[in-house]
Amino acid sequence: MIYEVKPSGHRYPVMIKAGLLGEVGEIIGSSDSPPDGVAVITDSNVWGIYGGKFTEAMSGINFTPIVLEPGEGAKSLAGLGQLYDAFAEMRLKRDGLVMTFGGGVVGDLGGFAAATWMRGVSYIQIPSTLLAQVDSSIGGKTAVNTDKGKNLAGVFYQPDMVLSDVSLLESLPPREFRCGMAEVIKYGAIRSKGLFDSIGSGSGIDALTRITFECCRIKGEIVERDEFDVGERMLLNFGHSFGHAIEKLGGYSRYNHGEAVAAGMVLAAETGEKLGLTETGAAQELREVLAVHGLAADSAYSSKEILPQMALDKKTKGDGVQLILLRRIGEAFIHNITFKELEQQLY
Amino acid sequence: MIYEVKPSGHRYPVMIKAGLLGEVGEIIGSSDSPPDGVAVITDSNVWGIYGGKFTEAMSGINFTPIVLEPGEGAKSLAGLGQLYDAFAEMRLKRDGLVMTFGGGVVGDLGGFAAATWMRGVSYIQIPSTLLAQVDSSIGGKTAVNTDKGKNLAGVFYQPDMVLSDVSLLESLPPREFRCGMAEVIKYGAIRSKGLFDSIGSGSGIDALTRITFECCRIKGEIVERDEFDVGERMLLNFGHSFGHAIEKLGGYSRYNHGEAVAAGMVLAAETGEKLGLTETGAAQELREVLAVHGLAADSAYSSKEILPQMALDKKTKGDGVQLILLRRIGEAFIHNITFKELEQQLY
Repeated sequence: MIYEVKPSGHRYPVMIKAGLLGEVGEIIGSSDSPPDGVAVITDSNVWGIYGGKFTEAMSGINFTPIVLEPGEGAKSLAGLGQLYDAFAEMRLKRDGLVMTFGGGVVGDLGGFAAATWMRGVSYIQIPSTLLAQVDSSIGGKTAVNTDKGKNLAGVFYQPDMVLSDVSLLESLPPREFRCGMAEVIKYGAIRSKGLFDSIGSGSGIDALTRITFECCRIKGEIVERDEFDVGERMLLNFGHSFGHAIEKLGGYSRYNHGEAVAAGMVLAAETGEKLGLTETGAAQELREVLAVHGLAADSAYSSKEILPQMALDKKTKGDGVQLILLRRIGEAFIHNITFKELEQQLY
Repeated sequence: MIYEVKPSGHRYPVMIKAGLLGEVGEIIGSSDSPPDGVAVITDSNVWGIYGGKFTEAMSGINFTPIVLEPGEGAKSLAGLGQLYDAFAEMRLKRDGLVMTFGGGVVGDLGGFAAATWMRGVSYIQIPSTLLAQVDSSIGGKTAVNTDKGKNLAGVFYQPDMVLSDVSLLESLPPREFRCGMAEVIKYGAIRSKGLFDSIGSGSGIDALTRITFECCRIKGEIVERDEFDVGERMLLNFGHSFGHAIEKLGGYSRYNHGEAVAAGMVLAAETGEKLGLTETGAAQELREVLAVHGLAADSAYSSKEILPQMALDKKTKGDGVQLILLRRIGEAFIHNITFKELEQQLY
């Protein structure tokens, strides 16, 4: 399946198909202007499993693998410097190509490096996790973390192509898979009751292909209308303001992104219900679908710990925050609220 | 004088006037949407001389000065991290404003930080050197150096406004002033015989205002037609391929940017004459005008040292380089040449 994302002046395909990894060399080789040097950014987990298959598929194309340590730690200025050094070493030029082959960390960091190396080279994403396939590979957000917070630095930079091979998901550890399911549930919650209700049914390649396509379609549509995240795109942050705070409180190790977002979505739904803005029962519906997928609906932290952490988030404005709330499952909206009001509801 | 730069979809004014620094608070205060937080990036040299005046002019506007060590050393990933930390500390948000008050280093690094903090905040440049006023503040190029070379990482990011106070140039050390004159001479050489011939006449505020405006006009016109540096904009690199190599050979301390470009322009003119592509005598004309402004026409390095250094430059393509040559003084063109041919001409 191919979904075409069309943000301002830049149109690129998202190909979704089992077995796509085996065709990667063919796809790149058929380009009108073959790249002058190819850097492949990946991590040792992904490369350990798929390095051989990737190399075979790229037969005849000269490329340099840059293999990072797995984990969020690489998504730092130090990690960025490591990529720049590797690019310089291999003499990657403006006409070169960066490929990111991995999960969200590899995509975010590698995308930032591609966007900034010599002020921008072409890049192709090959997301290897469910989270990356349904969410982070679409929309052109790149980022690194700083000591003071997650994703504080980055740019908007659209890839030339996204190649989503859903069969890669078969090797995902269950916890990683659940992490992606949290985002799938998010798409259902904010935009599609149909997707939300169908998430439990079927988990084979066909169901995964359909779910991935549906998430890409929803995200693609939103991103096209709001590439630079000043309006509708904020809906994609449902559960994320609370979630980022939860991730941070857990030192980015106790909870992964999806687990934190899962608990964050429930908090947001409960906030909406308390404010009388969300249909009663939405939080309970979320709790149930999360349970089906083995995701906890509550984190170990109280609102008294979570709210102060939200203050530095990019989405905060002055002494308030733009929170994403549900009208009901399948429909979301932006709600401006002060931290004071939030405290009244949640403390 | 106000010159308006209009790259794709983004129009911003370059104001050129003696005494403009005194009006900076008024200009920002009159904005329709006052910024939520203002970070002022500067260096200790500039802040030592003009900090008081700037603070007075900003009366009533809350801002946080971030004062860097002077010199190219700050233009690194470490320097970028320092800015991010300061932004986080002051809780600079997306609605905030970054002002860069200084020379090329402050503008390039601060612009990169503004472009990437929370994926882009507004910024205003107040260039304090001749080099920055006539060249680096126009056109939206931001950059940091890496261990392996100059300006290897960066993005295109246009400021909201450039405020060029030519009276700031009165406090410039003579060597800094000469460095800027090298770029002025470059503009004359590539695009305006009239500017080239007039450079020697007059050095007061009026002459400086006129020269600065003329350089901004030339650069602005070229940038508008080629924002992303894939064609005509390359003409602005006249003398720079050789110049960057000379700067690097000197460890970025023996020669400043302008001194290196001065010698680079002569080398490029001589190369063009040897190839029979440049009107005979152009190199000599360059030597003469450089001498008037106290700029050396030759570096300490031979072509055998310079050419190998050029290989990693962003402008190199495969085993060749896109060199900017003069047809005659006032007219430049792009010339593709292999290193082998260059060696034949210059060794």
